Amino acid sequence: MFTETTLRSTGADWQTSVYSFPVSRTTSGSREAQKQRTRQAMLDAALGLLEDQNISSLGLREVTRAVDITPAAFYRHFRDIPDLGVALVEEALDSLHTLVRTVLDAPVEQTERMDRTVRLVRDYVREHPAHIRFVMRERHSGVRAVRLAIASHFDRFVAETAEALAEDPGFSAWDGHDREMLAGMLVEQMVQTGSAFLTAELGEGPNAERVAATARDRHRLILLGAERWQDQTD
Amino acid sequence: MFTETTLRSTGADWQTSVYSFPVSRTTSGSREAQKQRTRQAMLDAALGLLEDQNISSLGLREVTRAVDITPAAFYRHFRDIPDLGVALVEEALDSLHTLVRTVLDAPVEQTERMDRTVRLVRDYVREHPAHIRFVMRERHSGVRAVRLAIASHFDRFVAETAEALAEDPGFSAWDGHDREMLAGMLVEQMVQTGSAFLTAELGEGPNAERVAATARDRHRLILLGAERWQDQTD
Repeated sequence: MFTETTLRSTGADWQTSVYSFPVSRTTSGSREAQKQRTRQAMLDAALGLLEDQNISSLGLREVTRAVDITPAAFYRHFRDIPDLGVALVEEALDSLHTLVRTVLDAPVEQTERMDRTVRLVRDYVREHPAHIRFVMRERHSGVRAVRLAIASHFDRFVAETAEALAEDPGFSAWDGHDREMLAGMLVEQMVQTGSAFLTAELGEGPNAERVAATARDRHRLILLGAERWQDQTD
Repeated sequence: MFTETTLRSTGADWQTSVYSFPVSRTTSGSREAQKQRTRQAMLDAALGLLEDQNISSLGLREVTRAVDITPAAFYRHFRDIPDLGVALVEEALDSLHTLVRTVLDAPVEQTERMDRTVRLVRDYVREHPAHIRFVMRERHSGVRAVRLAIASHFDRFVAETAEALAEDPGFSAWDGHDREMLAGMLVEQMVQTGSAFLTAELGEGPNAERVAATARDRHRLILLGAERWQDQTD
């Protein structure tokens, strides 16, 4: 009776309702978890394969071989290599927005905020060198989707910084255009500092201490200029 | 008699002396010219092949096929692909030092100098987009020799800018360390402006006019900060 009612009432949705039985849901859940694990393994393997090469030359079969799945199984996770590249950009930069926002929103003076930003960048590069190397290397990528994904994150950082400046009494009187110009400068300074920390990790440029000191000096010079900028436009 | 004397006097150098006969010299000269033409053709072909890929994946055979020479003939011109990459870096940046020097040495005020720098960068990117794209893309190259060659040119730009600042009455009183910090900032600002002009060429970011306006604003803000910096350290 129960079965008959169920079958009758669900009709074409019968298969769906089977999948929503508790046991089936567990199976489906662990299948989903397994799928996520495979996807993560592919991203990790890709990042490793990208140590000495670029996304433009990364082969789909290189990735599937590294995680021991068939080449056809690639498409269960990503449309193509550029799609996987965009996922790596997300993995590299998405969580950074929250961290940056925390520093931007802290009720401290600008100099302290800038010091915290430098420390944040240094720690992030130290903890995620492969991700940051990937982003720096692909900023002018031959793969359009990847360079657009990176540009879009950098635009978001600029917008978030401009928003924080708008809430700061020292900058709230600025016109929006100038605030965006300054925000862009601060973000570029942060990106460039990240790039220098990365080079320091490779032992090829000034060490991390010097990079941090230079970044603090440059931030201070930008803030001094910003104070004068306001005087000039007043 | 003449022949015999020549042979006797030259000994082991006979072959060399044959090559130094007037006619042979012409042959050798045109052979050298032909070798230069082939080398240049290889550099041009490589730059074309690098439009959508990176030096890390460029194949030696791709290059030799493009200029219709045997793979073995590659080694008459370059040790390997990284060596060709370094030659491309030289081609892209070597002549820029003279141009930058001219702008730095012009007896004009800082604001006008900065405007000229922005125009120089815009024109250079417009005239050599493939070279600049190559440099921007390979700054964090997986090929060590290439990224070191780029870093070495950027270091030279910083040293040249610091030198010009030392000769400027407005900055001659600064200590060397601060002058280098400011020079590095100005060079980074120039590199970043070049990067933005390149993105504008691709139609992917703000257009060239807006890039130039932003670059001028940022330069002005840096100079305002630099004036205050001096007041602070006095």
